[in-house]
Amino acid sequence: MNKVIQLKRLEKDFNYFVDELTSLCKDDLSLINSVILDKLDSKIPLIQEIASHLILSGGKRLRPLLTCCSFQMSKDKLNSEKKYIDLAAAIEFIHAATLLHDDVVDESKKRRGLLTANEVWGNKISVLVGDFLFSRAFQLMSKNSSQKILKLLSDTSVIISEGEVLELNNDKNLTINEDIYLEVIHGKTASLFSAACQVGGMSAETSKEKIEALRSFGTNFGVSFQLIDDVIDYSSTTNEIGKNIGDDFKEGKVTLPLIIAYLRSNSQEKEFWKKTIQNLKQEKNDFNKALEIINKYNCINDTIERAVHFANIAKDSLGIFKDTIYKEVLINLINSSIARVL
Amino acid sequence: MNKVIQLKRLEKDFNYFVDELTSLCKDDLSLINSVILDKLDSKIPLIQEIASHLILSGGKRLRPLLTCCSFQMSKDKLNSEKKYIDLAAAIEFIHAATLLHDDVVDESKKRRGLLTANEVWGNKISVLVGDFLFSRAFQLMSKNSSQKILKLLSDTSVIISEGEVLELNNDKNLTINEDIYLEVIHGKTASLFSAACQVGGMSAETSKEKIEALRSFGTNFGVSFQLIDDVIDYSSTTNEIGKNIGDDFKEGKVTLPLIIAYLRSNSQEKEFWKKTIQNLKQEKNDFNKALEIINKYNCINDTIERAVHFANIAKDSLGIFKDTIYKEVLINLINSSIARVL
Repeated sequence: MNKVIQLKRLEKDFNYFVDELTSLCKDDLSLINSVILDKLDSKIPLIQEIASHLILSGGKRLRPLLTCCSFQMSKDKLNSEKKYIDLAAAIEFIHAATLLHDDVVDESKKRRGLLTANEVWGNKISVLVGDFLFSRAFQLMSKNSSQKILKLLSDTSVIISEGEVLELNNDKNLTINEDIYLEVIHGKTASLFSAACQVGGMSAETSKEKIEALRSFGTNFGVSFQLIDDVIDYSSTTNEIGKNIGDDFKEGKVTLPLIIAYLRSNSQEKEFWKKTIQNLKQEKNDFNKALEIINKYNCINDTIERAVHFANIAKDSLGIFKDTIYKEVLINLINSSIARVL
Repeated sequence: MNKVIQLKRLEKDFNYFVDELTSLCKDDLSLINSVILDKLDSKIPLIQEIASHLILSGGKRLRPLLTCCSFQMSKDKLNSEKKYIDLAAAIEFIHAATLLHDDVVDESKKRRGLLTANEVWGNKISVLVGDFLFSRAFQLMSKNSSQKILKLLSDTSVIISEGEVLELNNDKNLTINEDIYLEVIHGKTASLFSAACQVGGMSAETSKEKIEALRSFGTNFGVSFQLIDDVIDYSSTTNEIGKNIGDDFKEGKVTLPLIIAYLRSNSQEKEFWKKTIQNLKQEKNDFNKALEIINKYNCINDTIERAVHFANIAKDSLGIFKDTIYKEVLINLINSSIARVL
């Protein structure tokens, strides 16, 4: 259980490869950003202001990039029609809508280094502007999409909201097991990663097998990515995801490092977790104590090991595609995503 | 300005005609209810519990009924395919989603005589279950719909959320003018009435002119219906819409009777409105005082007059359809909708 993950430290980091992907897809991304800007427009100025605050705050556009990259990997001969531009924008809108509602539900104060919309304008308007963005997403995807793409994206929205409810329903629940937790992050993160990839393949009208490979890639990358985010909250010294270290602990958020730690804790330690997480009674030194227990049972390392497991499945699923620069960047992206905590 | 509305008191009331419409459409409605029950299902039991609490709490299914009735009025020869069943269920889901989010935004405690979901389960889960219902709606409408219907329903969702934001943005704003208020209720109520009617016509593949007539009918019926709801809050002794008389006043909600009253008030009365609505400082007798001013300037009657204006447009728009029992019931429905306050 104490095996230490051996992943050679990449010289280039996650942001480097996001930038590389961004530059590979820069024409598409510029079209997507035009659609986003255009569709942020509303006759109600406040909607535009709040939605722009979030959507134009320097997110990486990771999901739209996955769509473009998946299209490029999948396309045969001359798939010149860029139907996926609107769809990629729709996916970014769905993502933004869930962030607005998440921040209300989590009472978050900061995102990407800025005050959250709920902090600036209040919860009520954040809920309604989230609804606006959801509606805009459906408007965009309704424009030109096949039945299959519509089904995929609307099914994904259902899965996302089920994941969110499952998470809230297990709020501060220390005894949530790993499977349920994986279902939560599948809903919250992986399902939209997966849809973003599949939409690229579907727009290129590629084979069933390749779309299935993209589904697997997106899902497993998403799970792996979220697990590393969870780890960063307990270990990183950087502020890469715009959160403060220890935020999850302070909020009593139960993520995989803590789930494993609780399962491995002795009865005295279990009491500590109940006090600090379940009852949210935290004293000054409690985060350090939490880190001690987590490290005692090697929970960070073992969470990373889980993330590596999913990352490996994601990488292997790309075996069906020809070797291209797009595939290479995706593999680098996954490796460097894990390396965020190494 | 003091003309008193002369509408002969109908012997049968609004609920009677809703029942008549229900009985005319009972086979369709039973199919719609099956779809609703089926799609309330979720692997997360809490979602089903909360969504059912609202959707199975005895709403009239007015919007789905409008869809069925519009289909029946529009169909030519043998339009036997019942595509509009899923769509009518989707419209009811959109309606339910907006109610869940509305109740959070308005901090409402009761709806249809029951505690609201936010009151029983809290705001956070109500927001997320609302998102689930929105997503379910899009899943349903994505199944078999034409591009036109998808566009209509996703455009309608955008209009609804814009209307909600506009309303919140003008919260306690006494100087909102009648046009802006009409835009709010167009978004909040009339747009979905209108979409429900158009979907019926589109499913019957009727002419552009008839779909345009259904749009006009739905919109104007919706505006008229909402204005009468506003009046009920200041005048009715019944509890027909499940709200308590004076709720709007107590919450500082600015509706048409109050907008007109403020515009007609003298400076002393304007101060009263500022104190009670803008600053929400209300003393025991203030609701009665509000009623006095509203009645002094004939604002109830004049709001009803506005409602009658829209009702008349709605009724006339049906002139393009043959005389059938369906058309007759719709006209009775509008007349009796106005008669709720006579």
